[in-house]
Amino acid sequence: MPLVKLWMRRGKSPEYLRTAADCVHEALTSQANVPADDRFQILQQLDEDALIAHPSYAGVSRSADLIIIEITLNHGRTLEIKKALYADIVARLGRALAVRPDDVLISLVEVTKENWSFGNGLATYG
Amino acid sequence: MPLVKLWMRRGKSPEYLRTAADCVHEALTSQANVPADDRFQILQQLDEDALIAHPSYAGVSRSADLIIIEITLNHGRTLEIKKALYADIVARLGRALAVRPDDVLISLVEVTKENWSFGNGLATYG
Amino acid sequence: MPLVKLWMRRGKSPEYLRTAADCVHEALTSQANVPADDRFQILQQLDEDALIAHPSYAGVSRSADLIIIEITLNHGRTLEIKKALYADIVARLGRALAVRPDDVLISLVEVTKENWSFGNGLATYG
Repeated sequence: MPLVKLWMRRGKSPEYLRTAADCVHEALTSQANVPADDRFQILQQLDEDALIAHPSYAGVSRSADLIIIEITLNHGRTLEIKKALYADIVARLGRALAVRPDDVLISLVEVTKENWSFGNGLATYG
Repeated sequence: MPLVKLWMRRGKSPEYLRTAADCVHEALTSQANVPADDRFQILQQLDEDALIAHPSYAGVSRSADLIIIEITLNHGRTLEIKKALYADIVARLGRALAVRPDDVLISLVEVTKENWSFGNGLATYG
Repeated sequence: MPLVKLWMRRGKSPEYLRTAADCVHEALTSQANVPADDRFQILQQLDEDALIAHPSYAGVSRSADLIIIEITLNHGRTLEIKKALYADIVARLGRALAVRPDDVLISLVEVTKENWSFGNGLATYG
């Protein structure tokens, strides 16, 4: 059910992109009760000028390697689950790709379970 | 009021893209009380690596022709309306473009009516 | 906290894009209590065929210079604040770039404050 979008600046290898996407999905399955086969991700690389991010908002030090992750998912995750999810995404990206913790920005957009159709024109959770 | 985004893999003709967008809009006007002239759509084609979709989640069989449709619209559609919308999008895409029902993924993001300005800096429904 | 996306048709200069993004950010800081350093924006230019917009819905006259602005931000802005934000975005785009008021479409997506991590895997406002 999550629909995940990743944006980063152009210049990474296909392997880097795939591994970054793997990390986000593995954190969702580990921390937020997402089934392993419930994976839908859009990865977009942006020109330098097309991604504007303040270098230090919220007390971090952002580099050109910033990854912005938007996750549309169902309501119902507690604050504790969200915190665990954020931490695990950052930990996995750090281990797999040496992404700095400062370079991970996550935005959750919550919707109701009626709002998904994963095929055949049916409300998957309706 | 809906803002509609379509993502699919690169390689379709402009006519295919336009017809897919037509189908989504016609389903919105037919099933979800959207005026015919209330049409705003962004169509993005993605490289093979940039769209990751599980081949069988939710009991369907996805192909490389998967279309992901995200619709931002006002709150207030009932579950029955949402179900009719999903079914009609799939039916129209099937009739017009032979898109397989398995290859249509729909995600609704609901907002309040104050959240739109369609021009002139005014809250269109505020 | 806002994550801002701008879409427009291809063909504008980098300076135009940057100034448009500046205008949206300055309106957010002026009208919606957003800190100056809380700036995260994705700018996407689209081929002619990839942006479909009705030319006159909501009583305006849209041109090829349409800018679509989607702002994901925390709940809590009043209708008055939203109205002031819409008006100020349009006023700034008009002054800085001569964007016509008819050519500005704004969509707000509201989320809860727990839904953001701006780095280090922490819930920034949680």
